[in-house]
Formats: sequence, structure tokens, C-alpha cells
Amino acid sequence: MIHKAKKWILSGATAPPSKSAAHRMLIENGFILPTGKGFYSLLPLGQRVIDKLCRILDTEFQKAGAMKIGMPIVGTKTLWDKTKRWDAMGTEMIKFEDRQKAPLCLQPTAEEMCTELIASLPPLKKSQFPVMIYQIGDKFRDEMNPRFGLMRSRQFLMKDMYTFSTDQEASRETYRKICRVYEKIFGQQLQLGGDLIKVEADSGIHGGHISHEYHLRSNLDEDFVNLCDSCGTFNKSEDLKKCPNCDSAHQKSRKLSSVEIAHTFHLGTKYSETIGAKFQGKPLDMCCFGIGVSRLLPATVDLLSSSEKAMRLPRAIAPFDAAIIVKKSLMSNVIVEMTSSSASRYLKGGILLDDRIEMSAGRRIHEANRLGIPFIIVLANVTERSLVTQKPVIEVFTTHPKSEEPCDHGPMTLDRFVSFVQSSLYGTPNGGIDGNFDHSLVLDELGSH
Amino acid sequence: MIHKAKKWILSGATAPPSKSAAHRMLIENGFILPTGKGFYSLLPLGQRVIDKLCRILDTEFQKAGAMKIGMPIVGTKTLWDKTKRWDAMGTEMIKFEDRQKAPLCLQPTAEEMCTELIASLPPLKKSQFPVMIYQIGDKFRDEMNPRFGLMRSRQFLMKDMYTFSTDQEASRETYRKICRVYEKIFGQQLQLGGDLIKVEADSGIHGGHISHEYHLRSNLDEDFVNLCDSCGTFNKSEDLKKCPNCDSAHQKSRKLSSVEIAHTFHLGTKYSETIGAKFQGKPLDMCCFGIGVSRLLPATVDLLSSSEKAMRLPRAIAPFDAAIIVKKSLMSNVIVEMTSSSASRYLKGGILLDDRIEMSAGRRIHEANRLGIPFIIVLANVTERSLVTQKPVIEVFTTHPKSEEPCDHGPMTLDRFVSFVQSSLYGTPNGGIDGNFDHSLVLDELGSH
Repeated sequence: MIHKAKKWILSGATAPPSKSAAHRMLIENGFILPTGKGFYSLLPLGQRVIDKLCRILDTEFQKAGAMKIGMPIVGTKTLWDKTKRWDAMGTEMIKFEDRQKAPLCLQPTAEEMCTELIASLPPLKKSQFPVMIYQIGDKFRDEMNPRFGLMRSRQFLMKDMYTFSTDQEASRETYRKICRVYEKIFGQQLQLGGDLIKVEADSGIHGGHISHEYHLRSNLDEDFVNLCDSCGTFNKSEDLKKCPNCDSAHQKSRKLSSVEIAHTFHLGTKYSETIGAKFQGKPLDMCCFGIGVSRLLPATVDLLSSSEKAMRLPRAIAPFDAAIIVKKSLMSNVIVEMTSSSASRYLKGGILLDDRIEMSAGRRIHEANRLGIPFIIVLANVTERSLVTQKPVIEVFTTHPKSEEPCDHGPMTLDRFVSFVQSSLYGTPNGGIDGNFDHSLVLDELGSH
Repeated sequence: MIHKAKKWILSGATAPPSKSAAHRMLIENGFILPTGKGFYSLLPLGQRVIDKLCRILDTEFQKAGAMKIGMPIVGTKTLWDKTKRWDAMGTEMIKFEDRQKAPLCLQPTAEEMCTELIASLPPLKKSQFPVMIYQIGDKFRDEMNPRFGLMRSRQFLMKDMYTFSTDQEASRETYRKICRVYEKIFGQQLQLGGDLIKVEADSGIHGGHISHEYHLRSNLDEDFVNLCDSCGTFNKSEDLKKCPNCDSAHQKSRKLSSVEIAHTFHLGTKYSETIGAKFQGKPLDMCCFGIGVSRLLPATVDLLSSSEKAMRLPRAIAPFDAAIIVKKSLMSNVIVEMTSSSASRYLKGGILLDDRIEMSAGRRIHEANRLGIPFIIVLANVTERSLVTQKPVIEVFTTHPKSEEPCDHGPMTLDRFVSFVQSSLYGTPNGGIDGNFDHSLVLDELGSH
């Protein structure tokens, strides 16, 4: 789908001072807008990023056999009392009474509700296990000190998945399977593989056998991981005598500032036993798997941007795949239509037609680079001069994670451009820019934006 | 995408007594599950219906130039006091205090927040108007007496759209434009045209100049429209001396039980003036447009089903486009793959592979008819016998709104089946079943499920 910049690009608000450069960029570039302490609206650009993220999650989890559901945001005290978490959750859980004075909460997570859901259904058949259900929905946490925008907001979007197996070994297998899906999402899809840190973690208030956290580096001092300089592995111990992997002494370990973007738990039967989710009389063995969807925006922007003038997101979730910048005299030329149709051939994530002809092409390239649009196509003087020949050319730039300036690929014909895009996305032999990521395949499957 | 029934079809829970047959069907068929008074989980089948509805809305509103955003569910008293609606909303608005005793609410609607959003952005340019923004999100209303499931639940999914124009005449034009989009959604997309009742309505607590409600017939006595027997038009007057259209006397009017599925308002400057959303010093002229997304499930099921054994939804939002029922001895035959690939050619809304071989084909046809799956394909004895010939055949059934029994189209070759589907969907000359609806086109564009 083609979106016109004149209509589509809303100027961002002025960001308040914040230690988080990503938060400032997301506001200044018109992705989000604060509405109250710890609450944010997603503006059209931000909503597109979130929608793309959700589609990637839907595709990958459904491919793995998971089913999408939607549970209410509001939970009852009766339910949360069953696991004694009504009190344990403390003041971060938002509680209120309805008009009939029944105590309710805005759920920060849904182990109880999901377990009760399975317990309420007619008995499942052996062949239906493992049952893997997930939702992508708003969660609430009444932070004492909400900060860094979507990084620690009071309402946030979370993907939470719950699996139910008939025994512990099957549950472990499911745990490993979904961990592989996580690695595919963060690796192949979002291309964060090199920066992704997976550490064994404490299960905390969720309880259970084993748990892993997924972190990205960050300078916000929100969280940390330890890197052992001896063996190069990461761990999460608060007070560490020696590396749990290589037994090196504590002083060989460095504490790195990071943010958690996902957390997985092998819960065991804690919830199913209490709530009564059983198969043939035996409590089901559960895992749960979270991804902080809205948090991924600031987390990846912080990681991938090396300048506030060049915001970067993983390419698969950039708000548009390409911008076509057109000079005034070419606006009604057929080359615009030809270019957008060539671009749409492999780029299914939306194309921004930059029709802001009152701005110079140079300034608009600068703006597209500021938003981190992966392909920037310019139809200006070079194209205009080429129109008299048999083979008109367009000028092509690309933007890249951790790089501030757009990369200039010079003029090329539309045919050449199509193979250039193809090789950039799929890494075919005729040379690509980073190759081998399949988000476009996913978008093909899920449809264009 | 192919989904296997063995894994995918969860048996529904037992429905409590309810006057709403749709509500009972949605529970018994495993679309929804109650979690508390007036709260429901969407099970995988129900979630698929909601996801399809959302995609139709996204496509149509974005085609019309609207931009999708996401506003927080939680609003502040400070904001709602600006329009004096904090108190006016009464006990149906869920209110609570955060840990710092700041009064907050779960928003039942978002005129205030959306107007403040526009007011907070840097000034918009003339060329950006009309600004049309919408969200699809959870809303809350603390009903004294929640009833009929998703029809009157305390949490519900709503599409709410807000438009901002520079003057009243432009705003009226936008109002008419979006009303046409509504008619396309309910007509061409959901095929409810013949049953859709649009009436002029009172603006109520939202205020403003003009307002229309969209209703469907229902036997729940939740709401009503008047039908004038003289001129055949509908109106919504509570106490009517004469028909507002033809001036006929009151006794010629019949009160029909109905449910409201959508409401549109030309609001004028009520909110923009108070909150300060202006263009060149003049308050913007606003409209707002709601669709009760989750409510559309029971509303359309009630309207389109003529038996509790044959639930019907608009074809565009049936959980699957087709079911392929396979007998045991054919499960690993290549005909299954050939059939699903033929079906996928035009049916992009998901295919259920019914691999429950322990059930007879007849019983599985019955089950597919119960769920209202539009195309039912049977690979059983007839197919098995035909496999020795050059042209294997499949047996084809279709289900239709307001009809209880599946329609038997007999055996046909795969080629014939593909043209049969094509003509059913697009009404090409070689004969269709209802023709001319374009939801498959939309799904093509948005991607397959």
C-alpha cells in the first residue's frame, strides 16, 4: 500500500528531557505521544511498528502450532486469591471495586486466568497436547516511578503464551521448542541475533523450575547481565562467587547494563494444581513465555541507533519499507507509478510516497534517514535527465542499523533496482546488503501493509 | 494456512441458560468462555473471527485515508473534567485511584483523549485535513446488569474513529464519506445490507449536530427502531406523534426489537473548543464513528442463524473459509494436498483440515455445518472410487446465512471446484451462490490466515 507523506507524516511533539535517547526520538519523530504519567498513545508511525511486530509474532507462534486467544484485562480477586497472588502482587497491581463492590484488578499477567480457562473447558484429548495458547494484549503495572517512555510505562503491550503438557518431560520439550521460536523471532526476523543475550534467571513471583531472560544492551541501568571474561558466557547472579559456566572467580566477571525484552518460565504444576487444570486426574505441566512488545520499540531503537538524527529499528518493523522522494516536476510523471510498482514487488511493508514537494530532495532524504526507512528512492534531477533515454534511472539509498548516514548506491534502472532489493532481502548471489532475513517472506504470507 | 481439526477444535463449555441463542451457540461451539460477570475470553475460533473483522476494518478505513493509532485505556480525571464528563458518565464508568491516589478511569470512549492528542501535536498543515484517526481497542462499561454475553459485556472491543476538519461543511463531507465506508463494511463486506437499519438518532451524552445509529433486528429487546408502515422508513423517536419522513400518524408505526452495532456523530466543536484543538485559532469541527466489534459476533449470529445446530456468521468472518473432511484411508493420499492447494487458490481465510478420522464423514459435515464453515469438502468413498480415473472428484457442500442445512453440490473435479469457488466469491458468469462480495479480495490484500 502507498501512503502519502503530506497526509501521513505528523510532526512529533517536543520530547521532555530523558536519559533515554530512544524515548526522545520516538516522541520527536512522531511515533508516540505522552498522555499522562506512564501512559502513551501510539501515533500512526508507532502503531505501524507495533502492528508489524504483532504480525511477526502471530506468524511464528502459529507456525509453531500455537493458537491465539484473547483474555479479559480485568481479573477477579477470587481468581487471584486461588494462588495467593492477589496480595503477593503488591501495590504494582492496579486494584479497584466495581459498582457492586466486587474487588477486581487490571491484570499484569495471566497465569491464573489461562489456567482457569483450560480447567473450564471440557476434558481435552491426549492428541491435543501440548496445548499452546497465547494472546497479545495490554497489561498494567502501577510503577512507582514510570520512566523512559514505553520502556517502563504503566500500560504496556505484552505477548503472553501459556503451554500445557501432560508430563514434565513433554513440557520441557515444549519449553525448548518455544525458546527456538524466540530465537527465530529475535534472530532471523528482527536481526538482533548478535546482540541478543539469553541468561538463566530466577523464576521470581511466577515460581517454577527453570527460567530464561532475553536481554539487549542498554545504557539505562534498568537491569543487568554479568559477562564472564574467562569463558564469554552471560549469567544473571546477583552475588556471584564464581562463573556458573567455567568456575572462574568473581573478579573476572563484568556487570553490563541491559534491558529485559522477554522472559520464559517452565512453571511446572504450581498453577494447574491449585486451579485444577488436569489431564486424567494429573495436574498439567505448564510453561509461560512473555515478550514485551511495546518495550521492543525503545529497546531496539536504543540498541540500533548511533545518532539521534538517525533513528533505527529492525528492518522488519520499520514503519515503511521504502520512501519514494519525488521532485515537483515529476509528480505526475508515469515514472512515479513505475517506481512504486517495482518497489512493491518485494517490499510488502508499505511504501511512503514523499510528495512534500515544498521540501528539497536532500532534506527529504535526511528525513527518511531520520526515521530509518530502509530503502530511499529519489526521483529528482538525475531521473528527469534520464527520462529521454530508453532506460530511465532512479537514485537509491539504504539505511542500516548502527549507521548514521544513508548508504548511497547511485543511480540504477528499475530492473536493476528490483534485483538489488531482492538480493538485499534474500541474499541471492548477485550481492546483498545483509541478506538472509525472511521478514519479507512473512509479510508476503501475512499480507502487505 | 491449513489448521488441523484434531489440534485446533476445542470443545465448547456448557452454556448457562440465556435468552440469547447466539450467546449459547458462541459458548457451546467454543468461540468464547465466560471468565467473570460480564467478562469473556475469546477462544481460538472466536479470536479468528475478531481478527478477520479487525482486518476488514483496517483495510476499509485505511483505504478511505484514515490512520490507525492506539490510545491508552486509562484516562485521567483531569482530562475528563475538562468536558465535565467525569461526573456525567456516572457509575458505568470504572474509576479507581493509582498508588499515589490520582483518580483514573477505564475509558468507555475517547473523544477527550483523541482531541487532546490532536491539540498536543505541533500545528497541522491545511493539506493534512481532514485528519481521520481510529483505533480498535478494549473499552469498559460497568453495566449494572451485564447480559447476553458479548452483546452487553463489561469489557468490549470497539472501533472508534475521530475526524477533525477545518470547518463545518468539510466536516459534514467527512461524515458522509465515512458513513459510505460503514455501508461498504456492513454491505459488501459483511453482506448485511438487506438487514441493516440506519436511523437518525439522538446524540446523547456525546453531544453534537447529527447522529446515526446502525441496527440489526434481534429478539432480545435490548433496543428498538420504529418502522413506518406507510412509507417503509425507520426512525428512532421514543414518543412519536407522526412519522418524521412521511407525516403518517403514529398508529401506522411498528416498534421493532433491534440491537445497535454502530453509531456515528457529527460532534461539531464541543470537544475541540473546550480542549483547544484548533487550526489557525479556530476550533476544529469533529465527527466520531463507533463500531461495536465484539458485539458484532452475537448480533450477526442471532440475525443469520435459523437453528442452534447451524450457527451462521457473515461469510467474510467465518473462522475458516473451508473444511476438508478426509476419511481415514485417504489421510496420506496426495489428493488431500491437491484439494487444499486448489481450495487455497481463492479462499484466503484459512482452511480446516478435518483429520478427526475417528468420526464419520457425515458427523463431521454436521459439525462443519454447526460452525457455519462456508465450503465443506469431503474426501471419502466417492473420491476414493474416483482415484482410479484420470479425473478424481471431491464432494462439495456449502453453508448459507439463514439456512439450516448445508447445500449439496455433488461431486466435482478439482478444476470445476476452483471455478465454482471463484464464481461463488466473485459472481462470474458461470454461476455463483451469492456473488459480488469482495472480502476475499480484501483478504488477498491483507494476507491469508
